[in-house]
Amino acid sequence: MTVNVHLITPIISEGLRQLDDVKNLEGYGIKIFHSILDAGPASVECEFDEALSLPDTIKKCIEAEKDGADAIVIDCMGDPGLKASREVVSIPVLGPMETSVHMAAMLGQNFSIVTVVDGVVPLINNLVKVYGLSEKLASVRVIDLPVLEIEKEIERTKELLARESLLAVQKDGADVIIFGCTGFLGCAESIEHSLKDQNIHVPVLDPVPLTVMQAAVLANLGITHSKKTYAYPRQKDVKGFDIPFHGMG
Amino acid sequence: MTVNVHLITPIISEGLRQLDDVKNLEGYGIKIFHSILDAGPASVECEFDEALSLPDTIKKCIEAEKDGADAIVIDCMGDPGLKASREVVSIPVLGPMETSVHMAAMLGQNFSIVTVVDGVVPLINNLVKVYGLSEKLASVRVIDLPVLEIEKEIERTKELLARESLLAVQKDGADVIIFGCTGFLGCAESIEHSLKDQNIHVPVLDPVPLTVMQAAVLANLGITHSKKTYAYPRQKDVKGFDIPFHGMG
Amino acid sequence: MTVNVHLITPIISEGLRQLDDVKNLEGYGIKIFHSILDAGPASVECEFDEALSLPDTIKKCIEAEKDGADAIVIDCMGDPGLKASREVVSIPVLGPMETSVHMAAMLGQNFSIVTVVDGVVPLINNLVKVYGLSEKLASVRVIDLPVLEIEKEIERTKELLARESLLAVQKDGADVIIFGCTGFLGCAESIEHSLKDQNIHVPVLDPVPLTVMQAAVLANLGITHSKKTYAYPRQKDVKGFDIPFHGMG
Amino acid sequence: MTVNVHLITPIISEGLRQLDDVKNLEGYGIKIFHSILDAGPASVECEFDEALSLPDTIKKCIEAEKDGADAIVIDCMGDPGLKASREVVSIPVLGPMETSVHMAAMLGQNFSIVTVVDGVVPLINNLVKVYGLSEKLASVRVIDLPVLEIEKEIERTKELLARESLLAVQKDGADVIIFGCTGFLGCAESIEHSLKDQNIHVPVLDPVPLTVMQAAVLANLGITHSKKTYAYPRQKDVKGFDIPFHGMG
Amino acid sequence: MTVNVHLITPIISEGLRQLDDVKNLEGYGIKIFHSILDAGPASVECEFDEALSLPDTIKKCIEAEKDGADAIVIDCMGDPGLKASREVVSIPVLGPMETSVHMAAMLGQNFSIVTVVDGVVPLINNLVKVYGLSEKLASVRVIDLPVLEIEKEIERTKELLARESLLAVQKDGADVIIFGCTGFLGCAESIEHSLKDQNIHVPVLDPVPLTVMQAAVLANLGITHSKKTYAYPRQKDVKGFDIPFHGMG
Amino acid sequence: MTVNVHLITPIISEGLRQLDDVKNLEGYGIKIFHSILDAGPASVECEFDEALSLPDTIKKCIEAEKDGADAIVIDCMGDPGLKASREVVSIPVLGPMETSVHMAAMLGQNFSIVTVVDGVVPLINNLVKVYGLSEKLASVRVIDLPVLEIEKEIERTKELLARESLLAVQKDGADVIIFGCTGFLGCAESIEHSLKDQNIHVPVLDPVPLTVMQAAVLANLGITHSKKTYAYPRQKDVKGFDIPFHGMG
Repeated sequence: MTVNVHLITPIISEGLRQLDDVKNLEGYGIKIFHSILDAGPASVECEFDEALSLPDTIKKCIEAEKDGADAIVIDCMGDPGLKASREVVSIPVLGPMETSVHMAAMLGQNFSIVTVVDGVVPLINNLVKVYGLSEKLASVRVIDLPVLEIEKEIERTKELLARESLLAVQKDGADVIIFGCTGFLGCAESIEHSLKDQNIHVPVLDPVPLTVMQAAVLANLGITHSKKTYAYPRQKDVKGFDIPFHGMG
Repeated sequence: MTVNVHLITPIISEGLRQLDDVKNLEGYGIKIFHSILDAGPASVECEFDEALSLPDTIKKCIEAEKDGADAIVIDCMGDPGLKASREVVSIPVLGPMETSVHMAAMLGQNFSIVTVVDGVVPLINNLVKVYGLSEKLASVRVIDLPVLEIEKEIERTKELLARESLLAVQKDGADVIIFGCTGFLGCAESIEHSLKDQNIHVPVLDPVPLTVMQAAVLANLGITHSKKTYAYPRQKDVKGFDIPFHGMG
Repeated sequence: MTVNVHLITPIISEGLRQLDDVKNLEGYGIKIFHSILDAGPASVECEFDEALSLPDTIKKCIEAEKDGADAIVIDCMGDPGLKASREVVSIPVLGPMETSVHMAAMLGQNFSIVTVVDGVVPLINNLVKVYGLSEKLASVRVIDLPVLEIEKEIERTKELLARESLLAVQKDGADVIIFGCTGFLGCAESIEHSLKDQNIHVPVLDPVPLTVMQAAVLANLGITHSKKTYAYPRQKDVKGFDIPFHGMG
Repeated sequence: MTVNVHLITPIISEGLRQLDDVKNLEGYGIKIFHSILDAGPASVECEFDEALSLPDTIKKCIEAEKDGADAIVIDCMGDPGLKASREVVSIPVLGPMETSVHMAAMLGQNFSIVTVVDGVVPLINNLVKVYGLSEKLASVRVIDLPVLEIEKEIERTKELLARESLLAVQKDGADVIIFGCTGFLGCAESIEHSLKDQNIHVPVLDPVPLTVMQAAVLANLGITHSKKTYAYPRQKDVKGFDIPFHGMG
Repeated sequence: MTVNVHLITPIISEGLRQLDDVKNLEGYGIKIFHSILDAGPASVECEFDEALSLPDTIKKCIEAEKDGADAIVIDCMGDPGLKASREVVSIPVLGPMETSVHMAAMLGQNFSIVTVVDGVVPLINNLVKVYGLSEKLASVRVIDLPVLEIEKEIERTKELLARESLLAVQKDGADVIIFGCTGFLGCAESIEHSLKDQNIHVPVLDPVPLTVMQAAVLANLGITHSKKTYAYPRQKDVKGFDIPFHGMG
Repeated sequence: MTVNVHLITPIISEGLRQLDDVKNLEGYGIKIFHSILDAGPASVECEFDEALSLPDTIKKCIEAEKDGADAIVIDCMGDPGLKASREVVSIPVLGPMETSVHMAAMLGQNFSIVTVVDGVVPLINNLVKVYGLSEKLASVRVIDLPVLEIEKEIERTKELLARESLLAVQKDGADVIIFGCTGFLGCAESIEHSLKDQNIHVPVLDPVPLTVMQAAVLANLGITHSKKTYAYPRQKDVKGFDIPFHGMG
């Protein structure tokens, strides 16, 4: 009863996501597979970056399903290619933003998202609007550190995350904190403790582990996305992309 | 790495929920415990019934935590006592309505809830409003069969569920179906097949197994509800209830 | 043409609500009756307290109707048991929160609710959501004084109410103030004057007198709640509660 | 303890509103005064008609306050001049649409408004939006009879009201019916009975009596509109209107 | 291919709007015509002022259409008489508030409106609600200068506009600024530069030129308002207004 | 005073969009330029198609600005690449969906969108949500004809458009019709006439001409998108795309 969850990091930067980061999830009947992109941006920090990440993310989803994945997780809080990928595969595809906001909505009255830079704020606000949870979004805050700086400055990252998470609770009224970048993987415990030191007891969601676990739940229960919403694309000519999907009908 | 999930069926009717129904979830590292109420209604079909189910449901939650539960699931789509119970325990407490509507919102554009009788429709609409997902609720439909009739007439129940689910898709535009009564446990596969026969490929959510699995995910990840939203109650006098909770401060 | 309005204070604390408080409403063709609970909490300050207040509040509603009440008012800003009580009686049952927010929405562009403690804030926000008026709620503010302290410290209560009401107007943009606890009965005039001293002319709603008057209007006009929304409960077994209602059909 | 409520019918048509219609409210400690317009339209059935009714409605409000009114009710479901009139007087001014939708929202889950002609439907939808209750509006239905025909064809009016009210409940899911024209005064009991014959138990609101009673409640409690929302207009030149208000400052 | 756009300034104050202000739009195939009111207020700063401006604004619209206008623009951010005027003419009638908020919604994530005095704030909030864009309105800010002072104190006006626009961006999160009074005509470039000096690159919308250009687009494309929403008024008696419209049917 | 508007048809299908279609707009001081894609799908009918159209659409925008365009219009009702393109250029970029829904919201109370196939319906609903106008969207209807069939079956297309537009008005309450595919260019007059034959007078918006004209208005007034919302992307490595943009800072 092991499920294969395939994690796709939708950028070209090797080494940024190390499999060790998520290896500890394998204790729960889950086997983790991982891809990064051959074509795309070095990181996703705006609409332009995200647009360039879509075609190869979709391709990696198609390949993952062919290679036996039971579920797919896209490893970026912009959920790039989430809806398009669901159209071309039949296994569940989850995005960490969508998964986290729905879980956060269940854990407290409001939530805030603490992310990297200003460039992703409108994108995040629009995603939450499409996911239907804007009324529960207390704020989006930024630590003003580009994605590719996070790993190099992990201690400073944690300090900034702690500061903005505290402000989200005290000024914006957040009851739950969501990390707004999957590059913050592994920092939740530290931030939660830092808040507890201020006598603040709010969950801090680390989106990737949560989303991998949720993907496994769906796979185990045999639940996948609605093909009424995400119908297979119609067959048609495509130029410039070598994508192993040829459409229906 | 087994988690103990305690299922509380918030009614007094013995035998209605048989542990066999959920036993098959034990394969996923989950051990299931179960309680019914000593004080409360025979079934929950309106606000009055629900009000009478609250005190003992809360009491059972307190006892379950003391007895070593890692997470609690309230086995009723009215999520009775969900918010109050979260105040008095520190482990995650999940309701199948809240859990299902958030999952459904992730699986398709809209969802419909097919439930038992007219009396629960305003209650369900208000719950979805509080959970923040009204804009994704296509409709609430009823099969017009009281809860206590379901088990006796399981084939008729399936027929009625299939009919109303089909109408939810075709007339109301639903992309996902949620069972609006936990008494429908075990009927999802049958309804999903019946829809597939009409070439309709939409997920049909059976709330209890999904919610038990979600509860285990939270327990495994060490995530629980926000104590900013669900603070421990203040200590004060209570008359007429023998509830083993004495408040804080 | 006198109407009998029955006020139910949904707590067990004797002496907290003195009939003198509302006696002056009897000039308007209204006769006031009053009950407190035999079973329930000493005060209502969170979801847990409210849950324990429901069964006996409902019972007192049934008894009040049998004893000749023309309308019922539940004397608590959490409106505990409001919807369930409407199911079991045919006379109008009003809650001071629902009544006050609708009146406040008619008196100005936005309103703020000033209440006792943090524990009731999510509860109040959810009530306003269900009542459909969240977009007109400027803020919920707390004076951070438990219910049972109010009467003992009435002067300090008024000072804190004046301070938070002023902040609600100046910082949150409130055009109308609602007292978020019926324990503040009698303080409105003082707060209104205190705001006028700052040249701020906004109504300060004292919910109980307003709700009693509204209940009398409905009784006089022969209007009661929709039995389509609040149908009589179905007959079924109940254990642990001695409630004089036996259901329909 | 009698309150003077001044009813302003914002049209020029003499005899349409007879004081007998509302005389029976005088039993409740209310004395009724009445004006019609000297300048304005024969009836209000669209935005154009309403625009022409505003200046003289406002003037009549100013005069009513000077003549000793304790509260004013504008006798038209378009609530013409409601906000402007509140600026120029200090006593409460109520509109029957605003008052009815807030009361209907308290009596059931949803409400429908049954009105005269298509021309007022966008106007009504916009009013409900401004009043903040669109999410509780099930539908606006029309009987397709001009205002000035109602009195001449009162039996046909009742038949059409009964038919559209029934459809509002059965097709649109309304739990409460509001008359969308004050010309329907006196028809509520008949429609309520007609629905009961179909075993439908929903309130049918006759807006004028309700609004007069509410106006009296506000006057009795000394509550009036927020001068933060409805500040006195600044003094300035006006041409073409002989309005006895000269502004502040 | 020249279009005639008729600008109606809905106040009686001569000289406030000089045609020079908008003459430079004539380069784009547009010919500008202009009227002020014979009956109405000196300026529009509250609901009362606006009510008095309606009848003659509507009359001027009817006359403009008769005189050969291809489109009409009402020169006031309260959009007085916009809906009523659309009923009585068949050419497009545009209001600068409606036009600006829709354009602003296309230019950035959120917008703020900077206006004259507190008295118009509720009015503006309600307009934006009716236009359906409240969720994109970051704030309404006032410079606290009456309309008739603007021209006399144009340098102070610009300073105040610059200050409030800056606060709208920095404190309220606005991505676009809309002038909330057409009296600010001609100030946009100055404010935009002032913001650029702070390294803030947001559009500052000057509503009148934008609305005149939009009116010409509609006229050029042969698009006008929906007569389903804005049907011609029914014929009926009117007293006190000499308006050259006699209704339909 | 001629403005250069560059139209980008975000598909690879040559000949589908002929410049003649939009040439007649050149009378209004506009010069039209046109591109199709080198890499992308044959048509855009789902999320997958749209994802593949993004990178080259963005590239064409960058090139158009370099080649002297004053404004850009993306010729597809999915508005593919709209937000990303705004980040990489400084001239206005308009999408016909965003432009049309905002114009439709100004022309009537509600609008419906009539489009090609089911696959684009969720996509359209989500766009309207992000644009903030869901409450004014009466319905999305499909004629069930793939994009590439339209030109071949133009008469059948018009019949189907007429039928669905009529249903949108009569069943869904639409006051304005928007074509939900830019392939319907040139059909508006025919549908408008067909509706007039049923005595229905509603505007039918042909999105491309409207959007081109709007783009010219912005260019003429010197208005462009907010660089607060659409900041220039940060400089970073990109693989697999030859896009002439190298980022900021």
